Amino acid sequence: MEFTLEQIATILDGKVEGNENLKVYRLDKIQEGKPGGISFLSNEKYEPFIYTTSATAVIVSEDFKPSKPISCQLIRVKNAYTGFTQLLEAYSKLSKMSKTGIEEPSHFHTSSSQGDAGYRGAFSYVGKNCSIGIGVKIHPHVYIGDNVSIGDHTIIHVGARILDDTTIGSHCEIHPNAVIGSDGFGFAPQDNGSYKAIPQIGNVIIESHVSIGANTTVDRATMGSTIIKEGAKIDNLVQIAHNVVVGKHTVIASQTGISGSTEIGNNCVIAGQVGLVGHIKIADKTTIGAKTGITRSIEGSGKTIFGYMGMEIKEFLKSYSIFKNLPSLQDRLRELEKKQ
Amino acid sequence: MEFTLEQIATILDGKVEGNENLKVYRLDKIQEGKPGGISFLSNEKYEPFIYTTSATAVIVSEDFKPSKPISCQLIRVKNAYTGFTQLLEAYSKLSKMSKTGIEEPSHFHTSSSQGDAGYRGAFSYVGKNCSIGIGVKIHPHVYIGDNVSIGDHTIIHVGARILDDTTIGSHCEIHPNAVIGSDGFGFAPQDNGSYKAIPQIGNVIIESHVSIGANTTVDRATMGSTIIKEGAKIDNLVQIAHNVVVGKHTVIASQTGISGSTEIGNNCVIAGQVGLVGHIKIADKTTIGAKTGITRSIEGSGKTIFGYMGMEIKEFLKSYSIFKNLPSLQDRLRELEKKQ
Amino acid sequence: MEFTLEQIATILDGKVEGNENLKVYRLDKIQEGKPGGISFLSNEKYEPFIYTTSATAVIVSEDFKPSKPISCQLIRVKNAYTGFTQLLEAYSKLSKMSKTGIEEPSHFHTSSSQGDAGYRGAFSYVGKNCSIGIGVKIHPHVYIGDNVSIGDHTIIHVGARILDDTTIGSHCEIHPNAVIGSDGFGFAPQDNGSYKAIPQIGNVIIESHVSIGANTTVDRATMGSTIIKEGAKIDNLVQIAHNVVVGKHTVIASQTGISGSTEIGNNCVIAGQVGLVGHIKIADKTTIGAKTGITRSIEGSGKTIFGYMGMEIKEFLKSYSIFKNLPSLQDRLRELEKKQ
Repeated sequence: MEFTLEQIATILDGKVEGNENLKVYRLDKIQEGKPGGISFLSNEKYEPFIYTTSATAVIVSEDFKPSKPISCQLIRVKNAYTGFTQLLEAYSKLSKMSKTGIEEPSHFHTSSSQGDAGYRGAFSYVGKNCSIGIGVKIHPHVYIGDNVSIGDHTIIHVGARILDDTTIGSHCEIHPNAVIGSDGFGFAPQDNGSYKAIPQIGNVIIESHVSIGANTTVDRATMGSTIIKEGAKIDNLVQIAHNVVVGKHTVIASQTGISGSTEIGNNCVIAGQVGLVGHIKIADKTTIGAKTGITRSIEGSGKTIFGYMGMEIKEFLKSYSIFKNLPSLQDRLRELEKKQ
Repeated sequence: MEFTLEQIATILDGKVEGNENLKVYRLDKIQEGKPGGISFLSNEKYEPFIYTTSATAVIVSEDFKPSKPISCQLIRVKNAYTGFTQLLEAYSKLSKMSKTGIEEPSHFHTSSSQGDAGYRGAFSYVGKNCSIGIGVKIHPHVYIGDNVSIGDHTIIHVGARILDDTTIGSHCEIHPNAVIGSDGFGFAPQDNGSYKAIPQIGNVIIESHVSIGANTTVDRATMGSTIIKEGAKIDNLVQIAHNVVVGKHTVIASQTGISGSTEIGNNCVIAGQVGLVGHIKIADKTTIGAKTGITRSIEGSGKTIFGYMGMEIKEFLKSYSIFKNLPSLQDRLRELEKKQ
Repeated sequence: MEFTLEQIATILDGKVEGNENLKVYRLDKIQEGKPGGISFLSNEKYEPFIYTTSATAVIVSEDFKPSKPISCQLIRVKNAYTGFTQLLEAYSKLSKMSKTGIEEPSHFHTSSSQGDAGYRGAFSYVGKNCSIGIGVKIHPHVYIGDNVSIGDHTIIHVGARILDDTTIGSHCEIHPNAVIGSDGFGFAPQDNGSYKAIPQIGNVIIESHVSIGANTTVDRATMGSTIIKEGAKIDNLVQIAHNVVVGKHTVIASQTGISGSTEIGNNCVIAGQVGLVGHIKIADKTTIGAKTGITRSIEGSGKTIFGYMGMEIKEFLKSYSIFKNLPSLQDRLRELEKKQ
């Protein structure tokens, strides 16, 4: 997308100094500005770059007084940082929301419906009895099975797989190649040592304003629902097993795995590569450090847990600092033994 | 799928009490029953729900005597739990096996063949010289390369990638976006510090009754075959490197990684986020706890291994319980030193 | 692909003993040789197999003298191992580079261009303003967004997703279902406990001779670029977060995760399931053992780091060996206490 500086000044309620007809189509860091880019100057530390940048324009605050000649255009606004942030969001929203219409070939079953202002990319597939809201963007190669419901303004990115019976709220983003609603991993051991699959007939419910990362997997429930509650943000390559519940506004970083039937509270922060066993509950506002193993429920909200078999972080770090010095501790013990 | 209660009673060899023409199309937990759903009552604990459930019908045992009026239909069978399980399996099988025919556009090379009762979804791709059995379900967006063989009644779920020369047995399930037969990770260091790819010309052999999870990767062998033996069940986001062998009826949970040329025995259970180094052997019936690192072969079947550098679990837990108390152990040492 | 033994002898500058018109189409290990296969004998240990192999032909060194009758054809070359390696590479290159032309249906925006000798598989998608080099292989189900640039002789394997604004160099391989350029995981906490997505408007730059594994995710930068430098080799299921830099000829094994803005030096070797926190720097030629957690920058090149909270490997192993014996250490302490 391309905008004239005049258009941008209008959006930001600012004024152009220089040629307001010049066009920009990219947002740059000021130290990396190139022609066609627009940047901003907020932190004094970066002021030297404004005299040398090749960006077409720089957003500055009303009261900015250059100490040297400037060759780029300026857009003066109340607060340069806020102005740039506004621009960033407008740009991001426009680029994500600009696609509309239907590219062919695509598969859309006649029993399904999609609201206005939507997009369906080439090679996308929508099965039977789906109800898809207004402004939903279904990117190329997306698969949506049967009986799926998707709320308004949700974006399903390229190659994501939304399997039968899944419900997704509004304003969600499902990132590329994520799999929602795959079978839970449930097998009943048989007398001869083999396993028999336990039918997985539940579904996945994703509430509104949820983000699911690229290549993340969310399994359907055995019965009932696996639930990701409102505002939860889940990173790439995360595993959410059958019948898990992730609480509101909980954040889960990459490569974390949550085993079956575990319930995570609201407003938790779970770092990367954490593993949680099944059938436990994590209290609201729990923070779990990276690579932590959680082997039992965490009660009492607000704790920070860390370690191979999760402990309160202070206790773990105390023990670990002694672990690092175990050779000297052993030497001291030996010394005492000699003296006996 | 919709069934009348009469149809269900016939399947289960039971009797309807109430309107046998009512239809159900969903299996519900009794405490979450809704119109159109059928549930079951087996555990006495749940009896109160049968008087309040909105499910259309509930399966009960022959000898069940209600203590209050009931508004839903009943289906009386010998054993309610067994009956429901039968229904669950029938339902699951029907829903997985019901798709047949070919959706267009799809790509199927003329040199390949597929048996009867199969399904090929839209945007599926089948390359040259493939031999695909009876009743095989190839879901939309699936890719099957050249020289691939797939046994009867195997399901390849949406977006799975089966690369050249792979052999898959019968009654397998390959879950969404799994990748079977990607290049092994083999690079020869060169004198100048760069790396040169070692050609990966082997294949992957998956025997019968195997399940491969969503977004899991199974690399082809450098030469020879990476082998997943009969009945093995592999969860989501697992990494199986080149030339690995996974034994019969071995279960591997999510996010575990197995390095090149390692051989896992039969009837092992490997929990989530486990890592195994390459070129080792794991004895039959070994159990490996979550997040364990395995650095050498495990000999002697039936052991349970756990810990950052895998030990027998009892030993690890003893050491870890002292680790947690290292500060007090250090204090005691200090106390002794003072007394010297 | 099929070759006569005469053709192979010509490629390898060798001589056929036996029927030079026989054809082979597979490379076999000598102990697993079957008709239609060609193998090699280099290590004396394997000599017995040459008298029993069913392979059609075996490559041997000029000076090989059979001690028994041989039924397969021989191809005599200067050095049997080198000859086989040449064949292996020729075979691999041919099989990877042989596909050309365009399969339909595929989507290719008129504003984009692709060089000669290229391949675009069925159901592949190329967006606007893309510049794609000579000999580039775009396999089926690949997605390439807008403004993407791809250098000569790069292979994009089936189902890989290359999102808007990504730049990829020449001679790269992007393996199946990898995702390049997904949104970085950046959310600003709001006063009410919810999170707001921070627009991710940067891109990904992948230099030449880079390999990206199956189901690996490389997030775009928040601003600026996530960069994978020349010759880096990245395995399956790896997470590379926004604004990460991976140095030249650095190797990263499966299921490792690198958090935002971390910079990895050149010629590093990072094993599997390693986790690195964000905003740190790893010196050149650092080796990091499997499952290691890296919590701060590594300075000084050439170190080997290992452990739950990464330490120099020798230190970690010393401490861990005592950890394993903590129960006996505790006993000794008790003994001393008694004697007081």
